[in-house]
Amino acid sequence: MERFTPRQKLWLEHDGRLVMSDYRVRLLELVAESGSLAHAATVLGLSYRRAWGKVKEIEANLGMPLVQSAIGGAGGGHTTLTPEGQELVRAYRRYQARLERAMAEAFEEELGGLTGPGQSVPRP
Amino acid sequence: MERFTPRQKLWLEHDGRLVMSDYRVRLLELVAESGSLAHAATVLGLSYRRAWGKVKEIEANLGMPLVQSAIGGAGGGHTTLTPEGQELVRAYRRYQARLERAMAEAFEEELGGLTGPGQSVPRP
Repeated sequence: MERFTPRQKLWLEHDGRLVMSDYRVRLLELVAESGSLAHAATVLGLSYRRAWGKVKEIEANLGMPLVQSAIGGAGGGHTTLTPEGQELVRAYRRYQARLERAMAEAFEEELGGLTGPGQSVPRP
Repeated sequence: MERFTPRQKLWLEHDGRLVMSDYRVRLLELVAESGSLAHAATVLGLSYRRAWGKVKEIEANLGMPLVQSAIGGAGGGHTTLTPEGQELVRAYRRYQARLERAMAEAFEEELGGLTGPGQSVPRP
């Protein structure tokens, strides 16, 4: 248990295309936290144009408006999440948290015997 | 629900290094099914040498013998899993199956409202 760390990556697909991921929800979350798409883009090392395109792509894939903007000066003004966008971020974070807990529990119960040299995996 | 498919990738790390994954357990499973590391290598598009090195790497990382071989002719003879190897494959597959079920359930309950254009995500 102390030697091995279980890891997981989660995403949603539509027709084999990636439509939501940890990275995408992080982008939306950064917009919600800062009120600025420019700030979110900087944190993720994206150009403003690229971050904007990513948000528009997510909106198109999910079929819902996620951000709303007020016209501003340099940096693109003020951007916030729509109610749907806020709920999407909350729902996805709940989803991730549930699967983090499920992973820890399943690892402990199924693979908890993996403790290193000379050890075998006990059958529960 | 019918529009989006939840996906996950699972792996185990030790000190930030990948030590077990879907791919690695598939390699071991193919050895168990065919009794041949050469066959397993072919199915995965690996050279025999590469597949053998991968198995040795997994053994070193986990600290347990996973395969046992009888000397043979072309293709490396007969290779089977040790009891520890067999139990590792079974335990990892149980682990994966549990998290597949947990993912389907969490997706349904947290993100089941993502059904496309015009829909929002309902709060459970």
